[in-house]
Amino acid sequence: MKIGIIGSGVVAQTLGTKLVELGHDVVLGTRDPKKLDEKKNMAGSLNEWLASVKNKAKVAIFKEAAQHGELLINATHGQAAVEALHLAGAGEAGSKILIDTSNELDFSKGFPMALASEGRSVAGNIQAAFPKLKVVKCFNTLAAPLMVNPKMLHGGDHTIFLSGNDAAAKAQVTELLKSFGWTDILDLGDISAARGQEMYMGMWVRLYGSLKNGMINIKVQR
Amino acid sequence: MKIGIIGSGVVAQTLGTKLVELGHDVVLGTRDPKKLDEKKNMAGSLNEWLASVKNKAKVAIFKEAAQHGELLINATHGQAAVEALHLAGAGEAGSKILIDTSNELDFSKGFPMALASEGRSVAGNIQAAFPKLKVVKCFNTLAAPLMVNPKMLHGGDHTIFLSGNDAAAKAQVTELLKSFGWTDILDLGDISAARGQEMYMGMWVRLYGSLKNGMINIKVQR
Repeated sequence: MKIGIIGSGVVAQTLGTKLVELGHDVVLGTRDPKKLDEKKNMAGSLNEWLASVKNKAKVAIFKEAAQHGELLINATHGQAAVEALHLAGAGEAGSKILIDTSNELDFSKGFPMALASEGRSVAGNIQAAFPKLKVVKCFNTLAAPLMVNPKMLHGGDHTIFLSGNDAAAKAQVTELLKSFGWTDILDLGDISAARGQEMYMGMWVRLYGSLKNGMINIKVQR
Repeated sequence: MKIGIIGSGVVAQTLGTKLVELGHDVVLGTRDPKKLDEKKNMAGSLNEWLASVKNKAKVAIFKEAAQHGELLINATHGQAAVEALHLAGAGEAGSKILIDTSNELDFSKGFPMALASEGRSVAGNIQAAFPKLKVVKCFNTLAAPLMVNPKMLHGGDHTIFLSGNDAAAKAQVTELLKSFGWTDILDLGDISAARGQEMYMGMWVRLYGSLKNGMINIKVQR
């Protein structure tokens, strides 16, 4: 599948690598693709990433990534997401699926980070700004390595969440999650449920602070 | 142990029953102890409760419950908690341990409920208002039946959280949790971490909405 990733940090690179490994045709979008040697936040440079995937992917501007993808993934910061998607021309992307992985974390006051708002969600804002897109909230509740390799923790016995307004879009994202090794995939409902996924980060940052380990996740016992 | 519970709804009654069963000397505090026949929110009347515990506990005004308890439990609604604790004379309760079970859920806009604020926590507000009390946040992340009977779900293999500024207070609450059957007790740190526990409710209400089942909890895989 042709996949366009909006963003080039650790989440974008980690998802991108796994998708390339699975044989997908990935374009990773960045604000300024001339800066291929600049080290990214919590990740290496894009030239290092391209070498790591043996140049089987491409790095381009946001708009080219968005045009390339049959499936889109937003891996920008929550505060920048809507603006970055405007730059990507998401309003002209038709009714493509967009997986939103972002959290609206406010790092300005240090650890533990605050959520910028709880009365709304990044994914809800994106869906409202781009009504034709089929936004699916996913991946925001985990560290990047776990997103693509759930079996590295407790044999994979933990839960990943998704939400969105379009059932077929969620079914397609579910198939993608299964291809990553996920077995406990929990559909929380329409895109308004993204608020729950994003608010969970208030707990996650405390778990991380207490356990000093980000390679954690929750299993919903029911 | 002498335990004073501030509040008389379903959480207060459920914790009260279990504590009586374990042989503790419980006084349940209510705003107006004359209204013993009034049905409580999501629970029976206090006369029914007293009959169910074979009158081995007592119902009294907030202040008497607070005076009685060597250990105090706040089981009021988050929005009313500080005011109720003022009524209970918590400022004159010395340095007793107070377990705060509350969530500041705003039901005014229907389901899913909003948290009234994320920049602060009920438990943090209580600790700030009553600096001598040893506030421990606990129990807010679960339906009442699970609080006192963790084994009813998945053999008890799920996590309960606590936070607070006083290590000895947390150790005492940990012993209480063990007496309820809890085995995975996770200390999140000082009382500021209560915010994470309270924000998790944004996820919990979505889990409840999706699964149509409140007898759920999370296991932190780490």
